[in-house]
Amino acid sequence: MRLDRYLVPMPDSYHMTPDEFRQRGAEMVEWIARYMERVESYPVMSTVKPGEVRSQLAPHPPLHGEAWDDVMSDVDDVIMAGITHWQSPGFYAFFNGNSSGPSILGEMLAAGLGTQGMSWVTSPAATELETLMMDWMAEMLDLPPKFSSHSTGGGVIQDTASTSTLVATLLAREKATDYASNRSGLEPGLAAYTSAQAHSSVEKAIRLAGIGSDNLRLVAVDDTFAMRPADLAQAMEADVSAGLTPALVVATVGTTSTLGMDPIRQIGEVAATHNAWLHVDAAWAGTAAICPEFRHLHDGLELANSYLFNPHKWMFTNVDASAFYVADRAGLKRMMSVSAEYLRSAESESGEVIDYRDWQISLGRRFRALKLWFVIRHYGIEGIQHHVRRHVALAQDLAERVRRHPDLELAAPADLNLVCFRHVDGDAASEAILERVNSSGTAYLTHTKLDDRYVVRVNVGQTHTEQRHIDQLWELITG
Amino acid sequence: MRLDRYLVPMPDSYHMTPDEFRQRGAEMVEWIARYMERVESYPVMSTVKPGEVRSQLAPHPPLHGEAWDDVMSDVDDVIMAGITHWQSPGFYAFFNGNSSGPSILGEMLAAGLGTQGMSWVTSPAATELETLMMDWMAEMLDLPPKFSSHSTGGGVIQDTASTSTLVATLLAREKATDYASNRSGLEPGLAAYTSAQAHSSVEKAIRLAGIGSDNLRLVAVDDTFAMRPADLAQAMEADVSAGLTPALVVATVGTTSTLGMDPIRQIGEVAATHNAWLHVDAAWAGTAAICPEFRHLHDGLELANSYLFNPHKWMFTNVDASAFYVADRAGLKRMMSVSAEYLRSAESESGEVIDYRDWQISLGRRFRALKLWFVIRHYGIEGIQHHVRRHVALAQDLAERVRRHPDLELAAPADLNLVCFRHVDGDAASEAILERVNSSGTAYLTHTKLDDRYVVRVNVGQTHTEQRHIDQLWELITG
Repeated sequence: MRLDRYLVPMPDSYHMTPDEFRQRGAEMVEWIARYMERVESYPVMSTVKPGEVRSQLAPHPPLHGEAWDDVMSDVDDVIMAGITHWQSPGFYAFFNGNSSGPSILGEMLAAGLGTQGMSWVTSPAATELETLMMDWMAEMLDLPPKFSSHSTGGGVIQDTASTSTLVATLLAREKATDYASNRSGLEPGLAAYTSAQAHSSVEKAIRLAGIGSDNLRLVAVDDTFAMRPADLAQAMEADVSAGLTPALVVATVGTTSTLGMDPIRQIGEVAATHNAWLHVDAAWAGTAAICPEFRHLHDGLELANSYLFNPHKWMFTNVDASAFYVADRAGLKRMMSVSAEYLRSAESESGEVIDYRDWQISLGRRFRALKLWFVIRHYGIEGIQHHVRRHVALAQDLAERVRRHPDLELAAPADLNLVCFRHVDGDAASEAILERVNSSGTAYLTHTKLDDRYVVRVNVGQTHTEQRHIDQLWELITG
Repeated sequence: MRLDRYLVPMPDSYHMTPDEFRQRGAEMVEWIARYMERVESYPVMSTVKPGEVRSQLAPHPPLHGEAWDDVMSDVDDVIMAGITHWQSPGFYAFFNGNSSGPSILGEMLAAGLGTQGMSWVTSPAATELETLMMDWMAEMLDLPPKFSSHSTGGGVIQDTASTSTLVATLLAREKATDYASNRSGLEPGLAAYTSAQAHSSVEKAIRLAGIGSDNLRLVAVDDTFAMRPADLAQAMEADVSAGLTPALVVATVGTTSTLGMDPIRQIGEVAATHNAWLHVDAAWAGTAAICPEFRHLHDGLELANSYLFNPHKWMFTNVDASAFYVADRAGLKRMMSVSAEYLRSAESESGEVIDYRDWQISLGRRFRALKLWFVIRHYGIEGIQHHVRRHVALAQDLAERVRRHPDLELAAPADLNLVCFRHVDGDAASEAILERVNSSGTAYLTHTKLDDRYVVRVNVGQTHTEQRHIDQLWELITG
């Protein structure tokens, strides 16, 4: 009989008991606290060679469970050498991916609860706290009212800016085709626009959405690396003349290479003449709008159809948490919602609740609102303002030193927290600076190219970066 | 002067110190351990009304930071009432999203390190441990060799099955158009195929990829709810005759409604005659292949181009972690890779390393391999096998009780761990059972419809479900 096949005698549970978790959890907290204390003592960039980590680990999965201490020994002896320390105050590379105590606690609680908030019913608190956090952040950044859940729009946590931008691109595609792409398939003829300094995620989204990178126009920038609205208008008109439909314009508030600031208002006015979707990518710089003195960067944002910024960059919240806002939540739901009997609930049918599964590509989702709630309540608005201002002040200090140094020159405006510079002797000399700094182990810088010249980028935005780190960095740069 | 504007006197840091984190982290571990001990005492489904959670929380973000104890009081007093307890042994709804002690510890460490593994250089250990884990799991499930990183393919952690299936759909689209969609935009004319019992994520992927839901054929199923290969062949031939190109077939190993098992080998042979991409979605049931006696479910998998299963469902690993495998990693990279100067590194150029940013939609990524490593080393293969077998045995016990009960009947085969049944008196009586069970607070079941009749689903797969829970559930069902 079928049943008997399975009812063989079995050993006890292999699960970790709550008491074992108590012990190992306490040890892990101590491990993390010690890591926080000592993070500066590690070389910021890992120095392992390709394959070195893997070669020291067991090539095959274990048949029998292993002792926890052996696992943690491998963390200390093998994994740690292969970590590039994003939480080191010497991390000035790319844009930061900052963590903080309250954020880690939020991740712990989310993992401990283990909820999956795809629908309101599958954990009402996960949905309602997320809606509240998105509204809180809209208020903190003084976003236009239409992005609030109290209006026609609303926000949702996506994993990263790339995903937020893909969702915006898909929305633009559907709007341009009256939702026919979803249903009957995409027809050729759409075009999209962004600046030559936009993030690579825009091209990726255009490709994945089926619009095709040949139909993405990279509009020229001015000498502050901001998109030229006149060039945008020209490109859109040329496409219309050629029979194409301008579907999407992506403006950037804080480009990756230089923190170039596209003029949203002028761009939005151009986009509107062609009824194109305006998406604003403020992945890094959006957080600055928590300070009134930086809100001018968002001027014209009421013209946008969608907007993103990443709390997981500058708002001391662990990766991943990209805050994505739309002005028309009904359109998002129309595009994303697929009915399935096994997902139906009375609450969903009522229309009274939000099911975030219809606001994103994924169905399942973690309870990421907790870490945002913990961070905002721990710091308060003034705490986040303080540290954002502090980073900007430190960057301004560094920029001023560059300006005064005879051998260095700024390669882009340094109005916020990113300093781009080069050596007056040319690329080799600039590259030598980066090599020297990075090989010191004390700091990690990355580069970009501007007007085909090699440029060193210093993004001053790590949670714990202070004056003494900038002083140390300056010695390495000029040493 | 610009500099002076920023150098105003400032208060001290608002960051949580390592010592504060020590204290609050220890409290959080204790909180989670107590939650583990008491999870059965909560009603499985939250009983809050729409808006009830939000209405008890501050409508506006705080200007000043708040005391940690106040934050945690709100967790206890407000959030907990709005939690549906996925970690309760009485959770039989949907498919489980299981957690476990070692997995929570893995999430803690990932959050504490705060790395972002978009590229090999940005944390070599994050990349190399992920490659190793994907190879370990391929070995544990005895997947075809082509999915290993030692061959032409490899695996990558995506957030959810929906995303994995979207990536597979995009790959199919690009293969069918020789990567022209990416470049010059999608032309109409592609068709895709899955069974009428496939997950809603397939339709969502087809829509988002621009193929259009009108071009998705829902192939009929047999009386075990498995796709009929002959009907698939017919649908593909009809489309070819109509001038369409069959691009993608999605087969399911363990459908959501009934755990229907599509015959991969026969489906793969049909797909191959049209050179269509074969993607296999084994989100839930894939984990069963860790037990040799269930590996027949994967028979024919060597014909697949891509495959997914979700460790975050049945493998005791926190959401999110979907294991996505491709046979041709070069094609994935070709589709996803977008060059950007600021992302370049010598290691990436060398071709010696994997940059997982080119294997997914997102750029940024958490260190999710840690939780998989912790889970696999804690349980060992035999520990996971034990609990998978235990769940299957418990489900078989329940199925046998249904078979023997005069008023109940199985609505689908119950070969693995999902039991679908209905009351012989019809839908109202079936629905009454679900209402009775769910309103008890002791268990949470969901429903589906089969042949237009209401069916109660019991997925026996929660980490801690044991015989006594099934006994209790049976009393509620028959009570």
